[in-house]
Amino acid sequence: MTVAAPDKLQALRSALAGIEIITDPAQLTKLSLDFYHYSPVLTRQLSEKRGDLVVRPANEAEVMRVAAACAQHRIPVTIRGAGTGNYGQCIPLRGGVILDVSKLNQVLWAKPGVARVQAGAKLMAIDKQTREIGWEIRMAPSTYRTATIGGFIAGGSGGIGSITYGQLRDRGNVLALRVVTLEEEPRIIELRGDEVFKVSHAWGLNGIITEVEIPLAPAYPWAELVVAFPAEVGFMPAAHFGQALGDADGIIKKMISLHAWPIPSYFAPLRGSVPEGSAIALLMIAESSVEPLMELIREHGGQVVYNKTAQEASKGIMLGEFTWNHTTLHCRSVDTSLTYLQSAFPADRELKMVQHMYEYFGDEVLMHLEFIRIEGQATPVGLQIVRFTTEDRLNEIMRYHEENGVFIANPHTFIIEDGGRKVMDPRQIRFKQEVDPYGLLNPGKMRTWQERASG
Amino acid sequence: MTVAAPDKLQALRSALAGIEIITDPAQLTKLSLDFYHYSPVLTRQLSEKRGDLVVRPANEAEVMRVAAACAQHRIPVTIRGAGTGNYGQCIPLRGGVILDVSKLNQVLWAKPGVARVQAGAKLMAIDKQTREIGWEIRMAPSTYRTATIGGFIAGGSGGIGSITYGQLRDRGNVLALRVVTLEEEPRIIELRGDEVFKVSHAWGLNGIITEVEIPLAPAYPWAELVVAFPAEVGFMPAAHFGQALGDADGIIKKMISLHAWPIPSYFAPLRGSVPEGSAIALLMIAESSVEPLMELIREHGGQVVYNKTAQEASKGIMLGEFTWNHTTLHCRSVDTSLTYLQSAFPADRELKMVQHMYEYFGDEVLMHLEFIRIEGQATPVGLQIVRFTTEDRLNEIMRYHEENGVFIANPHTFIIEDGGRKVMDPRQIRFKQEVDPYGLLNPGKMRTWQERASG
Ligand SMILES: Cc1cc2nc3c(=O)[nH]c(=O)nc-3n(C[C@H](O)[C@H](O)[C@H](O)COP(=O)(O)OP(=O)(O)OC[C@H]3O[C@@H](n4cnc5c(N)ncnc54)[C@H](O)[C@@H]3O)c2cc1C
Ligand SMILES: Cc1cc2nc3c(=O)[nH]c(=O)nc-3n(C[C@H](O)[C@H](O)[C@H](O)COP(=O)(O)OP(=O)(O)OC[C@H]3O[C@@H](n4cnc5c(N)ncnc54)[C@H](O)[C@@H]3O)c2cc1C
Repeated sequence: MTVAAPDKLQALRSALAGIEIITDPAQLTKLSLDFYHYSPVLTRQLSEKRGDLVVRPANEAEVMRVAAACAQHRIPVTIRGAGTGNYGQCIPLRGGVILDVSKLNQVLWAKPGVARVQAGAKLMAIDKQTREIGWEIRMAPSTYRTATIGGFIAGGSGGIGSITYGQLRDRGNVLALRVVTLEEEPRIIELRGDEVFKVSHAWGLNGIITEVEIPLAPAYPWAELVVAFPAEVGFMPAAHFGQALGDADGIIKKMISLHAWPIPSYFAPLRGSVPEGSAIALLMIAESSVEPLMELIREHGGQVVYNKTAQEASKGIMLGEFTWNHTTLHCRSVDTSLTYLQSAFPADRELKMVQHMYEYFGDEVLMHLEFIRIEGQATPVGLQIVRFTTEDRLNEIMRYHEENGVFIANPHTFIIEDGGRKVMDPRQIRFKQEVDPYGLLNPGKMRTWQERASG
Repeated sequence: MTVAAPDKLQALRSALAGIEIITDPAQLTKLSLDFYHYSPVLTRQLSEKRGDLVVRPANEAEVMRVAAACAQHRIPVTIRGAGTGNYGQCIPLRGGVILDVSKLNQVLWAKPGVARVQAGAKLMAIDKQTREIGWEIRMAPSTYRTATIGGFIAGGSGGIGSITYGQLRDRGNVLALRVVTLEEEPRIIELRGDEVFKVSHAWGLNGIITEVEIPLAPAYPWAELVVAFPAEVGFMPAAHFGQALGDADGIIKKMISLHAWPIPSYFAPLRGSVPEGSAIALLMIAESSVEPLMELIREHGGQVVYNKTAQEASKGIMLGEFTWNHTTLHCRSVDTSLTYLQSAFPADRELKMVQHMYEYFGDEVLMHLEFIRIEGQATPVGLQIVRFTTEDRLNEIMRYHEENGVFIANPHTFIIEDGGRKVMDPRQIRFKQEVDPYGLLNPGKMRTWQERASG
């Protein structure tokens, strides 16, 4: 399904001579899609969407040439990092150009506590370089190996590391963004301080990010552990342990991920380690904190069933690849009828609402929590696994959560407002007018924009 | 006032041949006392107390010889680090030996995230060495320049750094303690994990700490800033700013210290910077977080009146030396009728009880808050400055706080239970029986022990 007229596309190709262009249909399909298929709803809505061609600039000057040509010919532009988003964020609804930024992958500089990188750099690749000076990125999605920093900032929210540093939306976690506008004469805009929020988490609707300045975290040697809880006690002791660890100020942690049984049974590579029926905690803990951690585990009746030093953890499986939305991946690899929720529980150390939902939904909604810091407090967010039956039932489940004060960031929609945001930040709408006057960037994803365009 | 009989002391001196001993009366006075004089109550009670002699061992073997000889001759032993405690913790109530550990001052080893040091090493001196590999101690009292690590762990609670890592009593902030017992044949005991709590904050009643293993924090370059708030808005906007900064997960901080006017007027070296009537916040912030900090300051109506990069801050005044109990020091250097409280407010982001106390006591109790993490939450502790009139009134002020749910760690007592602890941890009492069977360590400070000894 393409939209741009063939003559326009031809004119565009001439204008982009010398820049890598991909039109091979198999590639075009691959580079048009992302991990939207986690959602049965999005699968129905998006599986046929394609761009007309992929353009892969090698530097910012080439990005500007692409932007200028697309503006001139009024061709939609959908920016693509690694395409690991879950809501079809980088799937073009109206064809046009897929602007693949993966060649802009340089670490420009890194010093203690700060780095500046190109937007297409992969998260793990950035760490590889910054770790040489003892630092690493503060937080990463579980797609750390493949995802780009630009895609994370434009499409993600937080992840491994968020238990210490909060989320991308928290002040201080993105220091600066350099953006190319979509105009006949593209401009370069450097945003710093709160200005970064004009573009962050805007799904590529608000300019093309070419460079990113991020704060770095100390690269502790991270031990990886799995703690199991006796089958007979159910999930809640594991959840309380997670909260207590989140609140333990003297223990340095990067990841606290909790899984009710039977989720661990879907983790094939861990199957030998986890006792039947056990809820588990997947942890990344600074090696110097493992000894005090053991006291906390003992206090909560847990049992360490997997324990790797940082050195050992650097080989073989990465425990992080069983957390966040990788949990869903593992479950779906066994049973494709499984899908998921995205939720944030109210801050409450007693976890009453977690317990309620765990008991209320039973086997239909399997409890999966990630602890992160929200406004200074360790708080569980849920990426619960749902046994999908119908869209109506899925909506009912989400509604029940919302009615009980559990925030839902609906992952079954490609409309930005209907996900986590609810309403657009007016700063973002004003900024879009400035940088994308023809509304060519990722069209169809922002309701507010569509309504004002047609209104 | 000495207690030990002259012949006992003579025998002791013979047994300690080759170890440095000090008996010069001026030195003896100096090394018998600490900063008890911040409290008018303790001044009345303790100013005449003296040890009989100071012994200054150069290594652990010498410590063991001192312990053996004192056990054999039943001579009281009061351990002294730098003598900067505030409650007379290291003032000998019954004469005897002052065991000065300041010669045990080596950093034994340091690696990323962990160090092992001798107990008499000064905090700043430790940092000097660990910073060479990019790390520093997690938390320090404002007496950082002079205080020893052993004295901090045995007598202190937390300080600069506690806004990130909590307090010494939190699991993970002290990894191991090596202790010499007070017996005819002294033993060496290595305590790890929760076992460290048998000796930490025990005021030298529970064995002689010779070595300490501590976790290290990343040595960010710390900028130092003073933020002033308009005189007409009073203290609360400053306090709310402190809470918001404490809760800002993306901003790396080491110190958030709040002072109501007229406290800043007592800070002579800062006087030129602070507008008349302003409440101020004294901050240490990672340089990479200063830019987002500025947004938060703007949002709260603050004004930066002092701003040093880490490089600049390393020379001249240390902002930390206006915080914690240095605040009291500066106030008392102008007006010796001033004394202080130690309190912890209930965790409440709206700071209602802070506001109540601020308004209720007016000019009699000047608000001074330090934000620290308590069980995972940024919480204000108060070291309020009190215009002292009578002991009765002082007790009344503390009682009023307690009745309103503000925890008081009374700094006007030399009885360990009457300070912050309220009741002794039974583990500590059992451990004291083991390591100090004759009750010679710092006698007279633990009510529970005295009662069981006489009961
Ligand atoms: C198994 C799995 C686990 C996941 N776990 C997490 C998680 O823990 N936390 C989390 O936040 N997300 C998670 N995600 C979602 C996603 O992987 C991350 O958000 C990831 O960081 C996206 O990076 P990307 O390079 O793949 O971006 P893409 O998917 O390529 O793009 C994401 C969005 O950003 C836009 N964009 C990309 N690059 C730019 C640019 N240079 N300028 C402007 N806009 C741009 C795109 O148009 C799109 O709207 C997960 C996804 C999967 C499949
Ligand atoms: C201006 C000022 C500011 C302060 N600010 C803070 C603050 O921010 N936070 C805080 O916690 N405290 C603070 N204090 C109190 C004190 O300075 C600290 O707790 C300091 O760390 C004590 O160290 P020291 O070496 O001086 O210990 P000392 O005063 O010498 O000893 C303290 C206690 O520990 C015992 N002790 C010392 N060494 C050993 C050992 N090796 N083995 C066993 N027991 C031992 C002593 O017997 C005594 O009971 C402050 C005091 C002042 C005067």
